[in-house]
Amino acid sequence: MLKIPALKGIYRYHEFIGPILPLESIIYLGEGHTPMVEASEFLQEKVGLRFFYKNDGQNPSASFKDRGMASALSSIKHLIDQGLVSDVIAVCASTGDTSAAAALYASYLGPLIKSAVLLPHKKVTAQQLSQPLGSGARVFEIPGVFDDCMKVVEHLSSQYPVALLNSKNAWRILGQESYSYEIAQDFDWDMTQKAVVVPIGNAGNISAVMNGFLKFFRAGIIDQLPKIIGVQSEHADPVYQYYLETDKSRRRFNPVNTRPSVAQAAMIGNPVSMPRVVAIADEYDQASGQDNVFVVQVTEQAIMDWQLTANQNGHIACTQGGECLAGLIKAKAMGLVALNETAVLDATAHAIKFSEFQDLYFKNQLPESYHIVPAPDRVNLPELVSPENPDLVPSQEKRLEQSDFAQFVQEISLKIAKKMDLNPIDP
Amino acid sequence: MLKIPALKGIYRYHEFIGPILPLESIIYLGEGHTPMVEASEFLQEKVGLRFFYKNDGQNPSASFKDRGMASALSSIKHLIDQGLVSDVIAVCASTGDTSAAAALYASYLGPLIKSAVLLPHKKVTAQQLSQPLGSGARVFEIPGVFDDCMKVVEHLSSQYPVALLNSKNAWRILGQESYSYEIAQDFDWDMTQKAVVVPIGNAGNISAVMNGFLKFFRAGIIDQLPKIIGVQSEHADPVYQYYLETDKSRRRFNPVNTRPSVAQAAMIGNPVSMPRVVAIADEYDQASGQDNVFVVQVTEQAIMDWQLTANQNGHIACTQGGECLAGLIKAKAMGLVALNETAVLDATAHAIKFSEFQDLYFKNQLPESYHIVPAPDRVNLPELVSPENPDLVPSQEKRLEQSDFAQFVQEISLKIAKKMDLNPIDP
Repeated sequence: MLKIPALKGIYRYHEFIGPILPLESIIYLGEGHTPMVEASEFLQEKVGLRFFYKNDGQNPSASFKDRGMASALSSIKHLIDQGLVSDVIAVCASTGDTSAAAALYASYLGPLIKSAVLLPHKKVTAQQLSQPLGSGARVFEIPGVFDDCMKVVEHLSSQYPVALLNSKNAWRILGQESYSYEIAQDFDWDMTQKAVVVPIGNAGNISAVMNGFLKFFRAGIIDQLPKIIGVQSEHADPVYQYYLETDKSRRRFNPVNTRPSVAQAAMIGNPVSMPRVVAIADEYDQASGQDNVFVVQVTEQAIMDWQLTANQNGHIACTQGGECLAGLIKAKAMGLVALNETAVLDATAHAIKFSEFQDLYFKNQLPESYHIVPAPDRVNLPELVSPENPDLVPSQEKRLEQSDFAQFVQEISLKIAKKMDLNPIDP
Repeated sequence: MLKIPALKGIYRYHEFIGPILPLESIIYLGEGHTPMVEASEFLQEKVGLRFFYKNDGQNPSASFKDRGMASALSSIKHLIDQGLVSDVIAVCASTGDTSAAAALYASYLGPLIKSAVLLPHKKVTAQQLSQPLGSGARVFEIPGVFDDCMKVVEHLSSQYPVALLNSKNAWRILGQESYSYEIAQDFDWDMTQKAVVVPIGNAGNISAVMNGFLKFFRAGIIDQLPKIIGVQSEHADPVYQYYLETDKSRRRFNPVNTRPSVAQAAMIGNPVSMPRVVAIADEYDQASGQDNVFVVQVTEQAIMDWQLTANQNGHIACTQGGECLAGLIKAKAMGLVALNETAVLDATAHAIKFSEFQDLYFKNQLPESYHIVPAPDRVNLPELVSPENPDLVPSQEKRLEQSDFAQFVQEISLKIAKKMDLNPIDP
């Protein structure tokens, strides 16, 4: 009998990601091995650096979160397969991407597992709401912001017999380390003069990325650690604020109250992985023999402008991917990356999950609290082209006579040709 | 200097897909090698057959169309690289997916190429409209249905110096053949007792799928041709109607007027590849030594119900993917597939591109013309959980005092626990 081997996904690196799991417990839903796409010539020239986008939006639920969920749900399946647990109820709080991934992977194990997700009411996009609903999860909307949902879910999991799927779950971080393994493999294990740019929200992902490179470095698979550049929006920047203090002994963490951010998945004021990320960054710097982890802050305007520019040049970056490009440009301006370095930018989710922000930008309808003014040369709107004579408008219900339809085709073609300055081919 | 080799994408099969193209002209945006995901145990039992979904929604623009566009735009780049053309203007008509792919690949070659897409006004989802806009294409909305747009774009390309990117473009079909090559490779070149289920819209894709298997068969890479099952909705079924006549000599093609279909990408009444698909299907049957191509018709209700069922069991199928599962079940009932056969279903796009239909189904708001009644056990809606006391509602603007917030967390947790029938852990 054919088996599509689970080793295809993140478990290509099984020795590094939960080797305790037997292959038959591993779930494969098509996660991992996401493409690394070199920026177009035009865009690289504009930015002045060589860089790639790694498209984590091409994971099954359209974000990087699938890496961690493949790991977390495989670990739960292992417990079920051993008869150690049954009728599992998995819960998570989410800004959107986590709930989509959790609900997807849990639904594949139905009816052995049921899942519930908690989302901040009116703080996720329609597409993000559609995903856990489509996967059949119970979806609870909670007033407040993500940090409030997180507190509720932490309380729930301390009081009731439920499995917590947020990135506090160590299996999640394990799975997300695959992102670094893939980058190393894509560069043929040569991490010399490489910089990896990641957005920081709950700080679980940047922790996983550093952990992954550290493991490969210690195993001798790579002999250099790439530079890590974390990026935060000025509207949700607790990690950036923490590192502003240059004297390590005087650094103190203070949660911040977030303001609205188009990089909604990273709009977190009190990152659950804060103590962890500080410890790992220290370890990473030490192993590198120099400061090798940097956190930069970018404006909401820069996030949106650079996301649109990236996508107008062949990419499919979400707003967090835009945040990374804005961060790379900021880091270059600050002298944190050199011209001979190659950067890998994390497009954590697919652009279409966050198209609402693009839409609001194009229509100049972003609420003032975002502090974003659309740049006219980046705005793109559709144009309706109709015949002058309303009787010549076809529809699904009303089909035109042949000669009327021919006239319709000719008139519309001519109008479009005029709009595009096209001259007819010589006959 | 590192080069991420183009051979990673569809050009892994370079010998079969435009070997005339030199590697340096090939564009790689992360297309192809999409995951094949085995249906969950529960779902396979329900359907009564072994089957996989091949997730073509995990292509960069989130549909299978990227395969053809990588090929078509690489061929144009080759012409540009040779100095044979310049300032190319690429145009296409689309039900949504084609325009997203065309605009994405063209934008990567900007400013050498400009693109324009024609969409039927109000007949594509908001996400589908957002994609070509995001890629910076000129977007023209035309009254009528897809078939009308197609006629305009055909007229335009006959009168003006523009490159047509619809599937009449032979390079498109070449690229889409990679879908079959990947299936063959995923099954270790053993196509015994396999059935491939694909939706039929413009009939370009099913042509490419058959062509691909034929090429591999003739090259001796596979020694058996899989069964092909094409699926059409009762609301857009010209190909099904054509094959209803069993006497080949009496078959006549008649375009149909489409009615609204949730499988919107396949809502085509006058397929541009009609003559081609008939010829290739004949060839395929002959090479198979038996009837090996079948077309089944499914209801709108079945499409929607099976899409939701697939996704509630771990998949990310679009409505066309639902159409394939409905088609598999229909084919099984008709005795066209046997219990010892394994099916591969084409989820042509990502579920989130078509989430509007799920949303309308859940809210029971699908217009009557679709003839779909929501099945109560498939409906899933979010539940808002708020504190009784409105003063205890946190928001981004209004943060609560510590004790009030603790009360909020406790109350919400308790409410959720009740809704989910959870009992507290023994202390």
